[in-house]
Amino acid sequence: MDYTRLVSEIKHKKSNLCIGLDTDIKKIPEFLLKEQDPVYIFNREIIQATSDLCVAYKPNMAFYECMGPRGWETLVKSMDWVPDNIFTIADAKRGDIGNTSLMYAKTFFETYDFDAVTISPYMGEDSVTPFLGYQDKWVIVLGLTSNKGSADFQRLECEGKPLYQHVLEKVSSWGNPGNMMFVTGATHASDFAGLRVILPEHFFLVPGVGAQGGDLHTILESGQNQDSGLLINVSRDILYASNNKDFAEAARNKALSYLSVMESKIPV
Amino acid sequence: MDYTRLVSEIKHKKSNLCIGLDTDIKKIPEFLLKEQDPVYIFNREIIQATSDLCVAYKPNMAFYECMGPRGWETLVKSMDWVPDNIFTIADAKRGDIGNTSLMYAKTFFETYDFDAVTISPYMGEDSVTPFLGYQDKWVIVLGLTSNKGSADFQRLECEGKPLYQHVLEKVSSWGNPGNMMFVTGATHASDFAGLRVILPEHFFLVPGVGAQGGDLHTILESGQNQDSGLLINVSRDILYASNNKDFAEAARNKALSYLSVMESKIPV
Repeated sequence: MDYTRLVSEIKHKKSNLCIGLDTDIKKIPEFLLKEQDPVYIFNREIIQATSDLCVAYKPNMAFYECMGPRGWETLVKSMDWVPDNIFTIADAKRGDIGNTSLMYAKTFFETYDFDAVTISPYMGEDSVTPFLGYQDKWVIVLGLTSNKGSADFQRLECEGKPLYQHVLEKVSSWGNPGNMMFVTGATHASDFAGLRVILPEHFFLVPGVGAQGGDLHTILESGQNQDSGLLINVSRDILYASNNKDFAEAARNKALSYLSVMESKIPV
Repeated sequence: MDYTRLVSEIKHKKSNLCIGLDTDIKKIPEFLLKEQDPVYIFNREIIQATSDLCVAYKPNMAFYECMGPRGWETLVKSMDWVPDNIFTIADAKRGDIGNTSLMYAKTFFETYDFDAVTISPYMGEDSVTPFLGYQDKWVIVLGLTSNKGSADFQRLECEGKPLYQHVLEKVSSWGNPGNMMFVTGATHASDFAGLRVILPEHFFLVPGVGAQGGDLHTILESGQNQDSGLLINVSRDILYASNNKDFAEAARNKALSYLSVMESKIPV
């Protein structure tokens, strides 16, 4: 999906909601466990109940990998239910030397046909650029993450500014706002105005709203640009809104509660 | 595998050779392509021809992931040929928030039963510690990598020393030399004496010898401690030593040429 289409979907739906499909078999309703592939059934119901409300789905690879080879089949079957007008993100946080990054690009853009993949910047330019050779595909690079450990290295002062700022500035010079986004965690809501000054045009993928406690109002007010420029990810808070037969309806209602905040704040 | 056993294997075999199973279907001998699972057959032959010479195998996940779900089956079948006295490393370079890192630990230590997994330090402590709760399992954290892009951030001067030095010092405080190693690339051979001063007791996993051009002699002389403390990885130079029917024998001969350098330099 290209930049224009993504912005158009956000403005049309008045939503920058991304739903994180971090589906944990230990957390889904118990009655699903009698199914042959409970995670797939859960995902299918969640997608059908929410795909008119969100603009992106972001399955986290760890939750599928841990099930062995059949976990990847569950992922493929689940993503088949995602409509074509929705942006898809493989949350994989890969990153390796050039010839290996090329293999990861092939994995997520060809074998699995995602629109985007998340990657770690630690290994530098030749670990990132192999992902940029695909038309209408995106890399989403870790900038300032939502977890407590983000303070360990990302905020280290390097030559006058924190490491994450070096990452945003340098990595953004290798691509453009049409093939590159950055992960900037919602748990640092007060940083968003500054982040938008550093990168006025790029999309930010924002995890950490919901279970991790990030402040949605502040981020929408200080983090958007004229095209919105935000994808706000919510995982657990929507997926596990109910643990009963009504789990999909409860997920929809929870998604609607996020949309009620977003709809008045998305630029027209 | 625990620390004592690993050191014992290195001293017994007079080898710190790790063979990287970065098996690319485009690079294996053409006559194998008529097999149902050419990558598996290739790996099986390579392992049978070299397992008395090396102390570790390190398959790179990207090369299996890109084949889809059946790629993981190829990986499992291949690793079944690795004898029990050999250390196994999933080269995955994962790293995510705590609840996701737990899933990755489960993936590589339970679902696939590797001894070790490589991870990226960018997300900090809670992305690393979930891997440390397993008896006799290891994390191998990226320190100073072998690629050109390692200069982009890893060598950035932060509060008086390069970022990679902060990483080695801080990350090592979260574990111990019996459950944690660091990736330090062979393409920085002149840095090894300094790396050994920072971390006298930890193992270093050293990629970049062979196709990437790292200097084996210098690294063995300046990077070892009394237990050796090095796993030297070679991938392409051994795997693709010949493109004909004799590929396994050629791989063995290439491995022997590395051992001829190592055997006199491994501490007794």
